[in-house]
Amino acid sequence: MAASEESLRQALAEKQSAVDAQAHAVRALKARPGGAAQAEIDAAVEALKALKVDAGAAARRLQAALSNNGDGAAASSREAFRQAVVNTLERRLFYIPSFKIYRGVAGLYDYGPPGCAVKSNVLAFWRQHFVLEENMLEVDCPCVTPEVVLKASGHVEKFTDLMVKDEKTGTCYRADHLLKDFCKEKLEKDLTLSPEKAAELKHVIMVLDDLSAEELGAKLKEYGITAPDTKNPLSDLYPFNLMFQTSIGPSGLSPGYMRPETAQGIFVNFKDLYYYNGNKLPFAAAQIGQAFRNEISPRQGLLRVREFTLAEIEHFVDPDDKSHPKFVDVANLEFLMFPREEQLAGKSAKPMILGEAVLKGVVNNETLGYFIGRVFLFLTRLGIDKDRLRFRQHLPNEMAHYAADCWDAEIECSYGWIECVGIADRSAYDLRAHSEKSGVPLVAHEKFPEPREVEKLVIVPSKKELGLAFKGSQKMVVEALEAMSEKEALEMKATLESKGEMDFHVCTLGKTVSIMKKMVSISMDKKKEHQRVFTPSVIEPSFGIGRIIYCLFEHSFYTRQSKAEDEQLNVFSFPPLVAPIKCTVFPLIKTQKFDDVAKIIAKSLTAAGISHIIDITGTSIGKRYARTDEIGVPFAITVDSTTSVTIRERDSKQQIRVSIDEVALVVKEVTDGQSTWGDVMWRYPTHSAAHTEEE
Amino acid sequence: MAASEESLRQALAEKQSAVDAQAHAVRALKARPGGAAQAEIDAAVEALKALKVDAGAAARRLQAALSNNGDGAAASSREAFRQAVVNTLERRLFYIPSFKIYRGVAGLYDYGPPGCAVKSNVLAFWRQHFVLEENMLEVDCPCVTPEVVLKASGHVEKFTDLMVKDEKTGTCYRADHLLKDFCKEKLEKDLTLSPEKAAELKHVIMVLDDLSAEELGAKLKEYGITAPDTKNPLSDLYPFNLMFQTSIGPSGLSPGYMRPETAQGIFVNFKDLYYYNGNKLPFAAAQIGQAFRNEISPRQGLLRVREFTLAEIEHFVDPDDKSHPKFVDVANLEFLMFPREEQLAGKSAKPMILGEAVLKGVVNNETLGYFIGRVFLFLTRLGIDKDRLRFRQHLPNEMAHYAADCWDAEIECSYGWIECVGIADRSAYDLRAHSEKSGVPLVAHEKFPEPREVEKLVIVPSKKELGLAFKGSQKMVVEALEAMSEKEALEMKATLESKGEMDFHVCTLGKTVSIMKKMVSISMDKKKEHQRVFTPSVIEPSFGIGRIIYCLFEHSFYTRQSKAEDEQLNVFSFPPLVAPIKCTVFPLIKTQKFDDVAKIIAKSLTAAGISHIIDITGTSIGKRYARTDEIGVPFAITVDSTTSVTIRERDSKQQIRVSIDEVALVVKEVTDGQSTWGDVMWRYPTHSAAHTEEE
Repeated sequence: MAASEESLRQALAEKQSAVDAQAHAVRALKARPGGAAQAEIDAAVEALKALKVDAGAAARRLQAALSNNGDGAAASSREAFRQAVVNTLERRLFYIPSFKIYRGVAGLYDYGPPGCAVKSNVLAFWRQHFVLEENMLEVDCPCVTPEVVLKASGHVEKFTDLMVKDEKTGTCYRADHLLKDFCKEKLEKDLTLSPEKAAELKHVIMVLDDLSAEELGAKLKEYGITAPDTKNPLSDLYPFNLMFQTSIGPSGLSPGYMRPETAQGIFVNFKDLYYYNGNKLPFAAAQIGQAFRNEISPRQGLLRVREFTLAEIEHFVDPDDKSHPKFVDVANLEFLMFPREEQLAGKSAKPMILGEAVLKGVVNNETLGYFIGRVFLFLTRLGIDKDRLRFRQHLPNEMAHYAADCWDAEIECSYGWIECVGIADRSAYDLRAHSEKSGVPLVAHEKFPEPREVEKLVIVPSKKELGLAFKGSQKMVVEALEAMSEKEALEMKATLESKGEMDFHVCTLGKTVSIMKKMVSISMDKKKEHQRVFTPSVIEPSFGIGRIIYCLFEHSFYTRQSKAEDEQLNVFSFPPLVAPIKCTVFPLIKTQKFDDVAKIIAKSLTAAGISHIIDITGTSIGKRYARTDEIGVPFAITVDSTTSVTIRERDSKQQIRVSIDEVALVVKEVTDGQSTWGDVMWRYPTHSAAHTEEE
Repeated sequence: MAASEESLRQALAEKQSAVDAQAHAVRALKARPGGAAQAEIDAAVEALKALKVDAGAAARRLQAALSNNGDGAAASSREAFRQAVVNTLERRLFYIPSFKIYRGVAGLYDYGPPGCAVKSNVLAFWRQHFVLEENMLEVDCPCVTPEVVLKASGHVEKFTDLMVKDEKTGTCYRADHLLKDFCKEKLEKDLTLSPEKAAELKHVIMVLDDLSAEELGAKLKEYGITAPDTKNPLSDLYPFNLMFQTSIGPSGLSPGYMRPETAQGIFVNFKDLYYYNGNKLPFAAAQIGQAFRNEISPRQGLLRVREFTLAEIEHFVDPDDKSHPKFVDVANLEFLMFPREEQLAGKSAKPMILGEAVLKGVVNNETLGYFIGRVFLFLTRLGIDKDRLRFRQHLPNEMAHYAADCWDAEIECSYGWIECVGIADRSAYDLRAHSEKSGVPLVAHEKFPEPREVEKLVIVPSKKELGLAFKGSQKMVVEALEAMSEKEALEMKATLESKGEMDFHVCTLGKTVSIMKKMVSISMDKKKEHQRVFTPSVIEPSFGIGRIIYCLFEHSFYTRQSKAEDEQLNVFSFPPLVAPIKCTVFPLIKTQKFDDVAKIIAKSLTAAGISHIIDITGTSIGKRYARTDEIGVPFAITVDSTTSVTIRERDSKQQIRVSIDEVALVVKEVTDGQSTWGDVMWRYPTHSAAHTEEE
């Protein structure tokens, strides 16, 4: 481990000197007599930023290795790391269990002042990065939703978890949790376990999410699992709907639910939004808002909660043309991707260039690829470590049968790889479901310049024949046949005509069946059409804001020794963009004239729209720095004269000297992202006798 | 009416020439050789802004008079005006009934793209104006709330409306609505009504909100009111709780509600927030979020809905010191106030200087006054007409018994004067209620430099004697006695000792009772104290964001004739601060080179963070202006060359010519509020051959 630590240290040193060299290059460019081309400067600055991100990641990896402490007990080290982060977060009120004075409610959390500020910064950047940049149509729909809408979407029927009850006490448990906990405990604690049994239990954990209700129930019985607290027998499995139910109006006759996602509000408005967009495709609608899931037994802090903020985009596109004009802007991005094939082959995620992934068909289409790229940029700009971020493709059994392709942005934290953003091509499913249920056609039109004679594919499965042949699986086969593309259908038609039968893979069954000629009729009908009427496809990037924020907390957290080496100090290395407070103002010593200067500076910061705190307690400057490093404040202004002050950067602890008139503007520049700390370091004198952590 | 119209026209002309003169003065100051003092320029610019607001108001008054059409039928004119506004709002998707394709749900609305943008601008400004400016502690708590919290707050017991049911169909009605509608219809349509009866019905409408359940029920019976749709008899009155009820977790044993206000989330966190603030008072916490009220029969569009966004501030303050250090900043503001006395005397609201209102005790204390002033500034900067905004003090019977004083910011719209912000001094009620119920003391401490011998007031009402004397009213008398201030209590002690009895006004009973010596013991106990422990008072400004936005829509809406005089064009005169989109980009004619320039400009606007739309349809420029005036876009960039473009201001239709490189910065300057349109008009050449509404 010492060797590995050594190599990490060396990597860090190399990254840091690369940063220094590049910073020097940027300065030289800016100072070039006659001026450099803006494009050249921009490119150099971008390169500098990328190097800094690398350096940051290297530092964190070293930190992680050090905290692993060379003993390989990664799990307990992860626990300890998490405990340190969570303690800091709760103590500094980033978040706290809701209704704490009443002993709280599992799965409900409050964001306190710094957490709330981080959240509102993340959402503001989301609006800037997605809504504004792409001219999306943002909407804001209620949480209370009538039953009819959620029946159409399938949530009333299918949005359930399987539950069992302690037969004596009535306490409820999630069935899959019990099975997982049982397997894990056996594997960890049962020393008599045979290798075969161990392999079996590991397999169960792996396929847990794919077990049917019957399989799950059988396993619970087979292993003799009882209620964890009482050892009482458990009831049979039954589904529990995860929506909070309520009743709209006084009659008691209008059931409603708190929405489990924000997307449905967009789908039901498709017709109006399409009109608003001038009856043109593609366009995207977006919504930020609360969503609710009445979890059976919430765990994992902010990662699995009963109420959370979602930010969702529904991008409506012609199913025949999923190209994206701005795909070229993200095509050169390279990051960790984890395609289906690699997962099935037991490999791990690998760096891929996005453009190639789309070209090779690993990612289904350009629009889906474009959003994957934009999500990567969004997350890394927030401060997510790009080496602990991967895009994982759904396996066939994870995907809804209607979905064309689906990728999750997963972020690694102490709980493992966590799904934080889902990016799914949901095809036409949602709009079709609401069209059917409401009777209002949710379709798009493409007018032809002149009428066209078109051939229309007509697929008519013979339900009778299919029923006889496949019995209970008939429905799945029918759906699979109807869902064939024109190319597939015509191939089938040809094969059936020549050979009389054909092998046909039904994804939803996970197997290949044999289709006979009499089971399906496929034909091309001709007719004249003046326009094409079609249901748009939907590509849906859906962001779990709380999960992203929690992972960001973990990725930003590190500790460093106090100057006196007697204490470990906590730091959140938030980029200025998300830092809850951008800047602090400290008079160096308690005296009226410094307090007055501090107040003048505070006023100019407020005028510039920069959130800040002013601390005129007599505490030592080192303590005051430590206190604000712990909530991730990137810049500290120390008032040590009545004409100029120092600005200290949190992570490097470097200080520069700036005049009082300029200080608010300089802080604004570096927090708005117009300049980097490196840029301003070069413009202002370094404060040589820096205020130390000891003053 | 013609004379009045004439005088309004003249007033408008005067205001407009005052604006012109002041604008000239500002320009002259800025151009002064050697430069003018910044303070002088600032003052002149402020004066200009104020004059512009006046001119805007005068224009709107003229508009209102014109739409009244000289016939005095104000009510029907208000209806027509509202219909015009609401038609525009719904057609342009500012807001629409939710779940429209499923025939909607009464009292639930979606904000479409422009409405959503207005809302997010209003909330961003709220954060800037209140949270950032005052260093408030913002929190974000869940909507799902366990029953225990809302029992403590009193909502489970008291947050009800009185309802009656159609005895045959089961349809529910709000009892007070039925009574009000009955009285109104009688007054409007029954020509045989005696003057006495008419006076009685008017009185009923006036005191409607103060009627007890018994009185309301009696009136319904007395007037023989039946179900409006069926004429069936009605059930007896019964209370209906307005909270949406649900169940937390799978057991069905934990009732919960969707919060009816955001305030409780702050109160239950008082202890942590006080600690976060360094155990110092005063401080304010704030929260923006959804709140829910399961209205019996929602009416009035956005004004009475089942789900809405609240923005609430809880300012915690020492009850013995409600002074405010920044009160001086608002003391000179003058606006319409409507104190209790004026209301009781049948007078109307009158302009008052805020500082005087506090000095004279019309407003209870400086902190309450400070927030009234800040609310005034907030609303008028959003674009609320200051002449249609008043602060109305609650009458004694409107206020909770614990409240020290309460003022509503009411905005006049077509529905009348609407409560949009409540600003209440709620004393220690909420913190005490949660302390009691949770067992966790929610108190503040003031440490004394050295221990003090203090005299403590002890009031012990004799429940037995009071019960004998006042029976059912005993509880109210006990509470009123216990709530006496030290001064009141000592006066009572003296009077009881000298005279043996004393008249005592009990607010909650609305009458004066006679207190005998044996009914209460009042004494001052001495003891040594090291600190003072007390429950802070809470001053609560609470903003109904949807109501403010709806009133803003009405105040911003006007119509003007098209150039061809064949059409009335709709305009929303939103200030740039709240405008949903800041700017449009129009190529004058459809040609590739102008389209390219338009795209370059669009890119620079995005980079500058300015929301915009680009319209490259071949529609006439006049139509394109009209289309975006109707959603309140303040600036339009028209591309008519490849080097420079014009910027048009929405309300004045003035145009200036600006180079392509500068245009994004100029628009940023005027939308950020760094400059006014007047400022930039002076810097750039006016576009003489302005693109007209006819091109």
